[in-house]
Amino acid sequence: MDIRAVNTLSYEEFVDIFGNVVERCPLIAAAVWSRRPFSTFPDLEASIAEFIDNLPVSGQEGILRCHPDLAGRDLFSGSLTPESRGEQTQAGLASLTPAEESRMRRLNAEYKDRFGFPFVICARMNDRESIVQRLSERLGSDPAEELRRAVEEVKKICHLRLRDI
Amino acid sequence: MDIRAVNTLSYEEFVDIFGNVVERCPLIAAAVWSRRPFSTFPDLEASIAEFIDNLPVSGQEGILRCHPDLAGRDLFSGSLTPESRGEQTQAGLASLTPAEESRMRRLNAEYKDRFGFPFVICARMNDRESIVQRLSERLGSDPAEELRRAVEEVKKICHLRLRDI
Repeated sequence: MDIRAVNTLSYEEFVDIFGNVVERCPLIAAAVWSRRPFSTFPDLEASIAEFIDNLPVSGQEGILRCHPDLAGRDLFSGSLTPESRGEQTQAGLASLTPAEESRMRRLNAEYKDRFGFPFVICARMNDRESIVQRLSERLGSDPAEELRRAVEEVKKICHLRLRDI
Repeated sequence: MDIRAVNTLSYEEFVDIFGNVVERCPLIAAAVWSRRPFSTFPDLEASIAEFIDNLPVSGQEGILRCHPDLAGRDLFSGSLTPESRGEQTQAGLASLTPAEESRMRRLNAEYKDRFGFPFVICARMNDRESIVQRLSERLGSDPAEELRRAVEEVKKICHLRLRDI
């Protein structure tokens, strides 16, 4: 999509198209519409990042809490967003062995228990092995540092979703 | 629901239950979970209001842009949230005459054009006549004042949705 075309969209069209570049947070695209016109796609992306960075800690945690578990119940029940389903499937998370699945479930539960939000990673920049490895490593992080890192992953996911539009 | 029970909810359960007290903005409930334990329901409501008040103007506009038009296409196509459908129906917006419907459509379009967000009003505290009258009056507001007023309506809607839980 051309950035000049983006700049002519009504907020309704804009939210329809960009509402899920941050998973289940249409509020963010809806807010960023106020900043148009955008000079380029990176400019739009920077406006989204800036909005996220300026949220209080609770708001950033809220964004993470709108994300599904990786290889979690939603993947198998069909209640994921199309974007998330595609990304998780591409990373091989839809075809884990029962042992891998049960390990992911245990690590996800431990992570959520420790940080109060789900483990978020840009699945398309990883595969099933590296995802489990990162999850396992990040379980030991300091909470403030982990929030920062998870928000960076949200931005990477957003970057790739924007590229698909 | 008892506030002690609310305080024991996981963020996933909390977002399932409270995710739409602000229309299509689960991010807000997900953020406010960080503030638990809540001493009372008014304390939870105040945390939501505080989160909204602390957003930048673009974020508050973003919340409004996640709301559907009143008596708009979504009401008739069945794509409203259950809460919004109930509220709009109760206010009589599902049974407008063709002339009233076309007047609402015209006023909504004019309003969105002027302010860049949809007309938001607590439908349950109004009826079809007062809704059209307020919409017509508020079209003449100063934009900053109108944003403030619309955000107050979001809080009234939130108050009644919380009471239903």
